Amino acid sequence: MIFKTTPAVEEMKERVCSLHTELLRWGLVTWTSGNVSGRVPGTDLIVIKPSGVSYDDLTPDLMVVTDLEGKVLAGDLAPSSDAESHNVVYQRMPEVGGVVHTHSPYATAWAARAEPIPCVLTAMADEFGGEIPLGPFALIGSDAIGKGIVDTLSGHRSPAVIMQNHGVFTIGKDPKAAVKAAVMAEDVARTVHFARQLGEPVPIAQEHIDSLYDRYQNVYGQQPSSKEQ
Amino acid sequence: MIFKTTPAVEEMKERVCSLHTELLRWGLVTWTSGNVSGRVPGTDLIVIKPSGVSYDDLTPDLMVVTDLEGKVLAGDLAPSSDAESHNVVYQRMPEVGGVVHTHSPYATAWAARAEPIPCVLTAMADEFGGEIPLGPFALIGSDAIGKGIVDTLSGHRSPAVIMQNHGVFTIGKDPKAAVKAAVMAEDVARTVHFARQLGEPVPIAQEHIDSLYDRYQNVYGQQPSSKEQ
Amino acid sequence: MIFKTTPAVEEMKERVCSLHTELLRWGLVTWTSGNVSGRVPGTDLIVIKPSGVSYDDLTPDLMVVTDLEGKVLAGDLAPSSDAESHNVVYQRMPEVGGVVHTHSPYATAWAARAEPIPCVLTAMADEFGGEIPLGPFALIGSDAIGKGIVDTLSGHRSPAVIMQNHGVFTIGKDPKAAVKAAVMAEDVARTVHFARQLGEPVPIAQEHIDSLYDRYQNVYGQQPSSKEQ
Amino acid sequence: MIFKTTPAVEEMKERVCSLHTELLRWGLVTWTSGNVSGRVPGTDLIVIKPSGVSYDDLTPDLMVVTDLEGKVLAGDLAPSSDAESHNVVYQRMPEVGGVVHTHSPYATAWAARAEPIPCVLTAMADEFGGEIPLGPFALIGSDAIGKGIVDTLSGHRSPAVIMQNHGVFTIGKDPKAAVKAAVMAEDVARTVHFARQLGEPVPIAQEHIDSLYDRYQNVYGQQPSSKEQ
Repeated sequence: MIFKTTPAVEEMKERVCSLHTELLRWGLVTWTSGNVSGRVPGTDLIVIKPSGVSYDDLTPDLMVVTDLEGKVLAGDLAPSSDAESHNVVYQRMPEVGGVVHTHSPYATAWAARAEPIPCVLTAMADEFGGEIPLGPFALIGSDAIGKGIVDTLSGHRSPAVIMQNHGVFTIGKDPKAAVKAAVMAEDVARTVHFARQLGEPVPIAQEHIDSLYDRYQNVYGQQPSSKEQ
Repeated sequence: MIFKTTPAVEEMKERVCSLHTELLRWGLVTWTSGNVSGRVPGTDLIVIKPSGVSYDDLTPDLMVVTDLEGKVLAGDLAPSSDAESHNVVYQRMPEVGGVVHTHSPYATAWAARAEPIPCVLTAMADEFGGEIPLGPFALIGSDAIGKGIVDTLSGHRSPAVIMQNHGVFTIGKDPKAAVKAAVMAEDVARTVHFARQLGEPVPIAQEHIDSLYDRYQNVYGQQPSSKEQ
Repeated sequence: MIFKTTPAVEEMKERVCSLHTELLRWGLVTWTSGNVSGRVPGTDLIVIKPSGVSYDDLTPDLMVVTDLEGKVLAGDLAPSSDAESHNVVYQRMPEVGGVVHTHSPYATAWAARAEPIPCVLTAMADEFGGEIPLGPFALIGSDAIGKGIVDTLSGHRSPAVIMQNHGVFTIGKDPKAAVKAAVMAEDVARTVHFARQLGEPVPIAQEHIDSLYDRYQNVYGQQPSSKEQ
Repeated sequence: MIFKTTPAVEEMKERVCSLHTELLRWGLVTWTSGNVSGRVPGTDLIVIKPSGVSYDDLTPDLMVVTDLEGKVLAGDLAPSSDAESHNVVYQRMPEVGGVVHTHSPYATAWAARAEPIPCVLTAMADEFGGEIPLGPFALIGSDAIGKGIVDTLSGHRSPAVIMQNHGVFTIGKDPKAAVKAAVMAEDVARTVHFARQLGEPVPIAQEHIDSLYDRYQNVYGQQPSSKEQ
């Protein structure tokens, strides 16, 4: 069967490609170490960064289109070596339209100690609804990482998980929302790191976390579109 | 009643818009997380950033004009979700012409530990006249944050307050002065953080703090305009 | 004997020159403190940065061509004062086609404490196959630094070594690979530094390190070219 | 007496103006908080940044020309409020042709703890010939800061001094050399800070410091011009 592209696929290739700029801009990635993917709305088609291509050289045409099992449908290059982990998320979380993976340094430092990031900032309550949870140590090359992500995030408010000794995975309704979660995860990982360096941050009461999260998800931003400050 | 704009309103929209560039440039904000507002001189009109718009996409025309109670008088978008806190400051501090809010990381780390930032740098004595004080924990969605800011800053030399578990608010005679205070607050929060990481900074005697503050407020810069080094 | 340049020499001058941009971009160098060199494939010719020239002013024509003993064959300027150390590596490791030296801050901080950087990140297992080893304290002005690099890296998986009280040297099959190793060495030095600031990172079992390293060296990237994520 | 400019004065105005770009580029200054000055060779004329002007707005024509007592000879703006400290250095150290002052964060953090920066990096031995010494606490508004700088640096190898609770002053044979010293002072202040965060750096033996310093001052760079790596 020959794959025929559509305007929706081409648009997703442009969006996924350009969102990598945000990973660089906010200091989340080094060399070629992070990747963004997106699900073409209403389909089982995934668009993902090719493996081993510098961010400077990324163009929409280099993006790889795969099915949910990772079979390459379009694109001359191999997909990101993290594609299998992205695909497990798309398979098991149908509401997810975008996935991001980085080794952003502050969040990854928490992951190296196998510590979830505690919710001691109102901005964390807003965005993550509580702590950023810790997922298991898992090796690449099977569905272990993907399963660890899904098991940790299922039933959790947070769109971000830190995987032990590894890095960060985030999800969203679309790739931009997943990128925002990755950017904010590093931002709060850094501020809480700084806070902990000189003592103990003050906890926020659970009822206040709940109230902040509820408000942010339902009131912020330009309705009915994005939820931003 | 229909709002009619004036040259002073349009000028304030341009100034408020362009000052957001400084928040980005000095590393105070991530994604869309900070905001600047200004009072149109001699009026009760406030110009503020719209909610949920990327800094790249800000233009003067997108700025929102409100009255002191937050009623939108001009602008197609909703104002920043922090507008209510800004407005309480403008209502209760008539000398204030600009307000800035950020979650700048070093200052917010002190806020997460509920610690004021001690005055151990001559630059802090110059700009803040002593420590940067701590305001209370307060939830968004009422006038609690605004009251906490005003109660903390009233009768204090510092134009900056760190709000517990939240972030920084600064005030000034105009938006640029409030932005400068936000930039310098993060700068000194960072240096004092570094100093404390490896031991105890040496305190500065109160009489020296007083002398430095007095001189800086009355002698520095190009008279009679801005007070800068 | 008069040196006659070749297209391969000229191409190497361009590559070595432009790779210095990456040292700046990723924050590895300050002022003129780092340098890149490359071996012209199939020859004993080395191309290296001139000494004391600002990165802004580097052009391919300023690159210095030497033999393996450091005798200048082409170029109007003196080679980097680190050239002797680079040359010892090229003499004793014929498989090496590129060498990079920096004082990148996080990696150099480990070197100042004379501590190897422990392998507690999957990205370290991928790139370095284990810890980044520590080389001896050695003075410039003899072959001591070069010998220390070679003795430490021989028989080690890591393409990076931190030299006590000094900085980082990396090797690669070509200059770009050595630059990538320098960039990733600083990246992991930083993340492990952050992790250690707040506790003890969780070790990765040796069998998992072996598995990750083996996979990364043999599977990643666009085959058969570069090995990147 | 009316001041008549010369080509040497105009050239120094251009050099002093453009060197402020380096302070920004290497992260040494925030808002308008640092300044560069230079002595016109063979004269008692000093060129210095005006007070309270943003780095973006600096042009050679805005530079202020003074005599050694700080009397303004040319320029429409007031000189930097630190001019008096610069002038004391020029008066008492006739070999000095450039002075730089910053509050660069890592170096200033050592100053806030009143700790000299120990020489645990070969690059420090090269550039500073040992530790970066600590000068006294001194108030602005008299010659106290200038005297503290001169008393500390006289007979010391280091071209940089950290002034207690304040910041960094550096000297050089010309403004560029003083800027290089300021950039390298922050660079080593940062690396030694990082090293100390996780333990004790290994000292370098005094004989090795002497050997490194001697070599760097006499051998490095393109002879007979600048001494850079």
